[in-house]
Amino acid sequence: MRVVITGGSGFLGSALARALISRGFLRGRSGKREEIRELVAVDVEPARESVRGATYLSGDLLDSEILAAAITSDTDSVFHLAAVVSAAAEVDFDLGMRVNFDVTRALIGQLRVCGGQPRLIFPSSLAIFGAMIPEVVTARTAAFPLSSYGTQKAMAELLINDASRKGFIDGRAIRLPTIVVRPGKPNRAASSFASSILREPLGGQQAVCPVARETALWIASPRAAVAGLIHAHETVPEQWGDVRIANLPGITVTVNEMVEALRRSGGDPGLIRFERDPAVERIVCTWPPRIETERERSMGFSADRGIDEIVRGYIEDYLDGRPVAKGTK
Amino acid sequence: MRVVITGGSGFLGSALARALISRGFLRGRSGKREEIRELVAVDVEPARESVRGATYLSGDLLDSEILAAAITSDTDSVFHLAAVVSAAAEVDFDLGMRVNFDVTRALIGQLRVCGGQPRLIFPSSLAIFGAMIPEVVTARTAAFPLSSYGTQKAMAELLINDASRKGFIDGRAIRLPTIVVRPGKPNRAASSFASSILREPLGGQQAVCPVARETALWIASPRAAVAGLIHAHETVPEQWGDVRIANLPGITVTVNEMVEALRRSGGDPGLIRFERDPAVERIVCTWPPRIETERERSMGFSADRGIDEIVRGYIEDYLDGRPVAKGTK
Repeated sequence: MRVVITGGSGFLGSALARALISRGFLRGRSGKREEIRELVAVDVEPARESVRGATYLSGDLLDSEILAAAITSDTDSVFHLAAVVSAAAEVDFDLGMRVNFDVTRALIGQLRVCGGQPRLIFPSSLAIFGAMIPEVVTARTAAFPLSSYGTQKAMAELLINDASRKGFIDGRAIRLPTIVVRPGKPNRAASSFASSILREPLGGQQAVCPVARETALWIASPRAAVAGLIHAHETVPEQWGDVRIANLPGITVTVNEMVEALRRSGGDPGLIRFERDPAVERIVCTWPPRIETERERSMGFSADRGIDEIVRGYIEDYLDGRPVAKGTK
Repeated sequence: MRVVITGGSGFLGSALARALISRGFLRGRSGKREEIRELVAVDVEPARESVRGATYLSGDLLDSEILAAAITSDTDSVFHLAAVVSAAAEVDFDLGMRVNFDVTRALIGQLRVCGGQPRLIFPSSLAIFGAMIPEVVTARTAAFPLSSYGTQKAMAELLINDASRKGFIDGRAIRLPTIVVRPGKPNRAASSFASSILREPLGGQQAVCPVARETALWIASPRAAVAGLIHAHETVPEQWGDVRIANLPGITVTVNEMVEALRRSGGDPGLIRFERDPAVERIVCTWPPRIETERERSMGFSADRGIDEIVRGYIEDYLDGRPVAKGTK
C-alpha cells in the first residue's frame, strides 16, 4: 500500500507515521490486510525529526505539482492532518479557509481523478460544536460552530461525506477531542493551555491557565487520537452507513482534575499561574465538555482510561519515562 | 437602498423582485425603513420577462468584473437566489459546487471588501437534512445531506453563519420547504413533480408522479417563500443569536392530499400518471416531511394556511384567476 500523511511534520503526523511504520500494514482497498510499502509524509514545513521508514515531501498541496506528486494513482490511503489551528484560523480567516477547506477539497479532487475510491481519513474537531448545544451532545447534534476553525472543519466534513456518497473517495471524518498532552511548544490552538498546564510543569517550567479551574474539557491523548485515526481507517463502509462523520470518544476532565493528576505524577502544580483570557474562553468554553459516543463505541472506537493514564503516556512517549521536573527541582 | 437579487431571472427571483418593487422599502443598514432606490437582478440567463422597476445585469458572478458590477460599495442587501437545483447538482457535481458554493463564497468575499456589513439573505433548503433524521426535526437537527445539492447548501449556510459572526456580512440563511406550485415548466429539481402534479392538470396537461401517493412533503407556496425571504431581511440580528440559519415554516401534505386539492380547485386528477422513479425517490424521500419550527415562529416567520390556499394562490398569481383546464376540458 501507498499511504500518505498530510501535515506529516506535525506532532500528530509524526506520531501517526511512527505507529503506521511499527504496525506495518493496514486494511487495503481490497478489504484485506496489506503491507505498507510506502509511507509519504507531506508538509509545508520540513520535518524537525523524520520518522525512519517514511519518505518526506515538502510543499503546498494547493500547488498542482506537489499535489500530483503526493497523491499518485497508486495511493491507497490518505490521512489528511494538515490544518491551521483554531486561534490562528480565527486571526487569519483566509488562511484558515485555504488550509482547512481548500486543501481538503483539492485532495478530494485529486483522489477522485486517481480513481478506485482511495480512503481519506480526516481529523475533524469537537470545535464544530458551538451554538445551540443540547444537554447531551451525540452523533446527531447539529454543528453550529462558533469559530472559523470549527466552521471550516464542518464544511470539510460535509464535503468528505458527499464525496464518499458519490464514490469519489472512501472518506471518514473523525472529530477529535482536545488533544492532551501535546508534546513540544505551545501552539496557536485556543486549547493549547490544556497541554501546557501539564507539559510545562513536568518539564520544570511555568505555565499559564487562561480558563477557570472548574472548566471541563473533552480530551483524548495523542495515543488515543492516533489509535482512533487508524481504527477509522480499518473500519468498513457498512459500519458508517450514510454518515461518514463520527466523534472520537474522549474523557471529561476539569482543569482541577488535571492539576491533581500533575501532582500525582510528580509535577509541581505551583508552576501553574491562573490568569483568565476572555479570547481563549470565548472559543474553548463553547466546546461541549462531554459527548455521548454510543454510536462510535459500537463501531469499535474507544477512549483513554483516565487522566493519570494520559499523563503517564506522555511521560513514557516524550520524556523517556522520567519527568524532567524531578531532576531539576 | 441598493438591493441585489441573484438568480433574478428565475421564477422566485422574479416574484421577489415584484414583491420588493411593490413594497418599495426595506429595513436599511441603519435599522430604519429605507426606500429601495435601485433593485438589480443578476442572472447568467437573461430574464424572460423583466420586472418593471428592476434593472438587469447578465453574467457569471465568478467573473470578477460582473461580481464588482453587481456588488458595489453602496449595496445594502443581497438576496442570493442563484442556484443549481437538486437533480442537476446530483448529475454534475462540479457545476453544483461552483454555483451553489463558490458563487456564495465569492459574494461573501465581495461584500466583505465593500464593508459596512451588508445583509445577505440566502435560501437554503430542507435538502440539507437526510441521514440520521430524528422523529422530530427542529432547528437543532444535524445536517447530514444525502444529495450534493443539500451538501452544498449546508456548506454555504455554515460559511454565511461564520462570515456573519466575523462581521463581514449580516447574513441569514433560510431553509425553504419544497416550493409548490412553481409556475412554468418542470425543472431539474428532484421535487419538480410536486408542482407538476398540480400545475399541469390545472393547465389541462398530463403530469407524472414519480413517488407513492402516501409520500408526505414539507411544502411552502411561492408567496410564503417570498414573504419568508423578506421577513428574514427585516429581522434584527438579536433575533438570531449565534445561529444565522433557520427553517422556514411549511405545511405537511401527502401526494393524495394534493390530488384532492387539485380536484376541489376544478383540475382533473385523471391527468396524473403514477410511475415510481427510484432516482427521484432516493432524493425526495430523504427529506423530512415535517419540521418543528417553534424557534422560527417566535421570530415571526409563518407558513401557508393549507394546500387549498396554495392552489388558489397559484391560480390567482399565474393563471389570471382561471384554471385553463376548465376552459379546455
